[in-house]
Amino acid sequence: MSVWLDRHRARLDAAVAAWHSRAAFTPFVESPSRKHHPEGAHQKGKATFEARLGRPFDLDLPGHPHPAGDGVVGAEVSPYTGAPLGITYPRPAIEPLFAAIRAGWDPWRLAPPERRVGVCLEMLDRWANASFENAYATMHTAGQGFMLAFAGSGASALDRGLEGLTAAWVAMRQMPVEATYTRRFGGAPVTLHKRYRLMPVGVAIVLSCGSYPAWNAWPAVLANLATGNPVVLKPHPDCILPMAIGVRIGREVLAEAGFDPNLLTLAPDTWDAPVAQALFAHRDTAIVDFTGGQRFGAWIEENCPRLQVYTETAGCNAVVLESVAALDPVLDALAYGLSLFSAQMCTAPQNIWIPAAGVRTADGVVAFDDVVARLVAKIDGLLADPRRAAGICGALHSSKTLTEMAALEVAAGERVVRHGGAYAHPEFANARTATPLLVRLDADDRALAQQEHFGPMAFVIRAADRAAALAGAADDARRFGAIASYAYTTDRAWQATVEDRFALAGASVGINLVGQRPMNFTAAFSDYHVTGLNPAGTACLTDPAFVSRRFRVVQSKVEAPASNDDAAP
Amino acid sequence: MSVWLDRHRARLDAAVAAWHSRAAFTPFVESPSRKHHPEGAHQKGKATFEARLGRPFDLDLPGHPHPAGDGVVGAEVSPYTGAPLGITYPRPAIEPLFAAIRAGWDPWRLAPPERRVGVCLEMLDRWANASFENAYATMHTAGQGFMLAFAGSGASALDRGLEGLTAAWVAMRQMPVEATYTRRFGGAPVTLHKRYRLMPVGVAIVLSCGSYPAWNAWPAVLANLATGNPVVLKPHPDCILPMAIGVRIGREVLAEAGFDPNLLTLAPDTWDAPVAQALFAHRDTAIVDFTGGQRFGAWIEENCPRLQVYTETAGCNAVVLESVAALDPVLDALAYGLSLFSAQMCTAPQNIWIPAAGVRTADGVVAFDDVVARLVAKIDGLLADPRRAAGICGALHSSKTLTEMAALEVAAGERVVRHGGAYAHPEFANARTATPLLVRLDADDRALAQQEHFGPMAFVIRAADRAAALAGAADDARRFGAIASYAYTTDRAWQATVEDRFALAGASVGINLVGQRPMNFTAAFSDYHVTGLNPAGTACLTDPAFVSRRFRVVQSKVEAPASNDDAAP
Repeated sequence: MSVWLDRHRARLDAAVAAWHSRAAFTPFVESPSRKHHPEGAHQKGKATFEARLGRPFDLDLPGHPHPAGDGVVGAEVSPYTGAPLGITYPRPAIEPLFAAIRAGWDPWRLAPPERRVGVCLEMLDRWANASFENAYATMHTAGQGFMLAFAGSGASALDRGLEGLTAAWVAMRQMPVEATYTRRFGGAPVTLHKRYRLMPVGVAIVLSCGSYPAWNAWPAVLANLATGNPVVLKPHPDCILPMAIGVRIGREVLAEAGFDPNLLTLAPDTWDAPVAQALFAHRDTAIVDFTGGQRFGAWIEENCPRLQVYTETAGCNAVVLESVAALDPVLDALAYGLSLFSAQMCTAPQNIWIPAAGVRTADGVVAFDDVVARLVAKIDGLLADPRRAAGICGALHSSKTLTEMAALEVAAGERVVRHGGAYAHPEFANARTATPLLVRLDADDRALAQQEHFGPMAFVIRAADRAAALAGAADDARRFGAIASYAYTTDRAWQATVEDRFALAGASVGINLVGQRPMNFTAAFSDYHVTGLNPAGTACLTDPAFVSRRFRVVQSKVEAPASNDDAAP
Repeated sequence: MSVWLDRHRARLDAAVAAWHSRAAFTPFVESPSRKHHPEGAHQKGKATFEARLGRPFDLDLPGHPHPAGDGVVGAEVSPYTGAPLGITYPRPAIEPLFAAIRAGWDPWRLAPPERRVGVCLEMLDRWANASFENAYATMHTAGQGFMLAFAGSGASALDRGLEGLTAAWVAMRQMPVEATYTRRFGGAPVTLHKRYRLMPVGVAIVLSCGSYPAWNAWPAVLANLATGNPVVLKPHPDCILPMAIGVRIGREVLAEAGFDPNLLTLAPDTWDAPVAQALFAHRDTAIVDFTGGQRFGAWIEENCPRLQVYTETAGCNAVVLESVAALDPVLDALAYGLSLFSAQMCTAPQNIWIPAAGVRTADGVVAFDDVVARLVAKIDGLLADPRRAAGICGALHSSKTLTEMAALEVAAGERVVRHGGAYAHPEFANARTATPLLVRLDADDRALAQQEHFGPMAFVIRAADRAAALAGAADDARRFGAIASYAYTTDRAWQATVEDRFALAGASVGINLVGQRPMNFTAAFSDYHVTGLNPAGTACLTDPAFVSRRFRVVQSKVEAPASNDDAAP
């Protein structure tokens, strides 16, 4: 059904243009407002989500059962209600799973890229149609607030999925399908007809994370499928449902196109019986796309040399706050960045570096202690209204975060400048909530800040001067990882120093971000996400290197019979 | 000196066009004939080679010593004269080597890609000017005949070097240097100026092989340098000189351009004290480009998960000989392919699969035994004249090959259909020579053929029918590796089956190659070399995936001050 490529061709062409220009491009709808959606779409999506609760999730299609072992898994609990979702999923069994995948692979890998890309475009479109259902599913597994879940797990993730697909499309179209080659080898000219076929490398295991599952999963799933690699999606054990919904839809699209739906399967597991390593170890596996913690990410990077490993893990994102035109808008941006989804986003700021002499502003220097006090006041003010706090902070994905916050309060002792207490959620009395915990450190005693603290935990770090602040921030990025770094400076010459210093540390930097809200927003098609040059991940997601190894060129060349070859019959 | 980019721009642009069209493109001169070269170039190159014998090889430049430890290495012996070359090279010391590299890296990695590519283009040009010297150096280390050395280690390797450089250039130019991004985040439109900087990943260790050193080394060296990665060239201990000549020239070009020549260094070693693993283990190393044996290649692939590993190793290249218009031209091509440089080329055929019922021709079926007998006669005839044999076969790179040929003669016993005796070299009485050893096997007893035999050892394998021949050839390619596969068939429908079958095995195939001489010729810019889909190597050399991970994108984005921002001073 390359009819799907035709149907979505305008979207794909616009995506290719944006991928090259890196200008703003957001083809999917970010707002759940009823004016952007068909009548009743919101209620229908919510009802579909609610109907899934307390029941087995069905991944089978008529005539196409999803491979499964004995029994079921599934122990998701809503961070808002504290109640189990009660949804069960088929437990994967490794050998039957891979046997089922292999059975349907050949038609898919021999299909022309155009056909596979058409299937992926249709998949994206149907995922978009399920955005309301997916937003509720994401809210009650990841803990995101509804608005964020609709945008971040909906449109933004779909934009990113299209970006990954576009990168694969561009890479595959870069090389000719065939060529005619003529040259003389001594005698008469010889002509060879050459054909270049793009072949996939093997099964891809995509591991999605617990707090923001679709955002990296969709680009990986589509980049793999488009290049011909079957996908096994292994969701975080506490956040299966949004991925199951996507896999179910993807399987329907594959089947409608006449391909085996087992090219896209779900392999859910539990904390007690993890399945990832068995998936990695299978001889048919060739790719791992991992989003999650740095420890398991590093384990994969170090222990799977046979596989292509693409990771996004975590870093201790820094802010260097040196000089500003006006301090209030910057502190507003920081307070929002520290609070949004309780800093459970990979680009959330964590370590705020400030020179000991304070921050220079158009109205004079603001002392270090005053900057800190004003930041605390900004956070307090931002989250004073529980309704607003609920919209911004959402819920904590994991109870572990509360444990870690308590431990950090103890470790920091008197250095705590803001306690990370809960806010009262106006709708869900049992919601697991927190507000930013802020700790003050000196640059030469900052071990606490040299790792990611997942959740609303941040540090203000006093450095001798701006050079020391920049050096500390950049060195920590290089050593411990950074997915996003930030700086505020009005000194244009020093801005270039900041850019060079972070570039040499292999870390991307956003400078003077005030009007971009949130400051840690990452734009599909325009921002490159993760550099691959520091411990926060091995891959720059959706750049050319993210896709180019997922397929290989296998060529055939056929010599044309010589027209005047006296040895020919 | 982007003057170099300007000077060589026409060549680069032509290369980019060829890289996209994959039509024939051979910019460097393949023939040593005097009509293509300045007066006296041949004699001058030969004299330069001879002047290097028996002396220390100088890699120092004025003011720029090559990093070195204590003592020297170097034990090369000419396969033609049997005499030591007597050339010594500085012994590398790991920490001083990497310290010297790091000292000069920042200006190189911060330089714009255009500047680095200009340096690489000039390097290629000067390597081309040293082609006669390099041909003699290659002859008396690798063992290639002079004509092959001039073309294969000269022009063909330079073409490939330009191809690798072109791939890097195309990949780097694919992404914009900067972009302007505007969108609304709630309030007034926000504009971000984004800059995308391409940063290298680390030191690249390029290991060149003993028999065909420049052909894979130049693409790897230039792809690395162009993308900003310093290169340590670790030559095969028996074939250092051709690489030392190239490194010396490259260092001169770097220094002239105002960069540190230690961005390109030589790390020669000996069989007794290998240095490769210490180079891999250094924290600054990020890339390995390896050409050589399958065992060490597999060791690298399995034991260096931290590194990007690009390998070309070895395979058991098959020929499926099913039906032909005329048998003689095919057997001529095969005899030549089995003999050229004593089958010490990675694309040389090894396993010739023939249906038990024989080969169909326009003149009727030729029985299996008759095909074998006629092939043996073709080889005998081709090599009957020692002068011709010398030109075709050259010398054996290593004495190990004679040992292995003797062992195979014993293992094969009565199945030997042609003995691999020496030919008498007309010019060098002590030359280490051999002619093809041919062994007949049955498909179901072919363990001897399921590995690469480096050198003039080949097998004719009797299969039940053509389907069994194709299945055996493709399965062995998938399991044991193949760099090039071949088939001869006049059945157009079955030709498609052959292409599909090899594609699914991850092996490229050349069909009905008769006029292409040698049959195992690989054309830079047109042929993709190695698929990366079977055990013969992890990388498709000089395709987009060969270059795209050697650099990463580090971005900075700066928010433009809002024109009507009431918080601005």
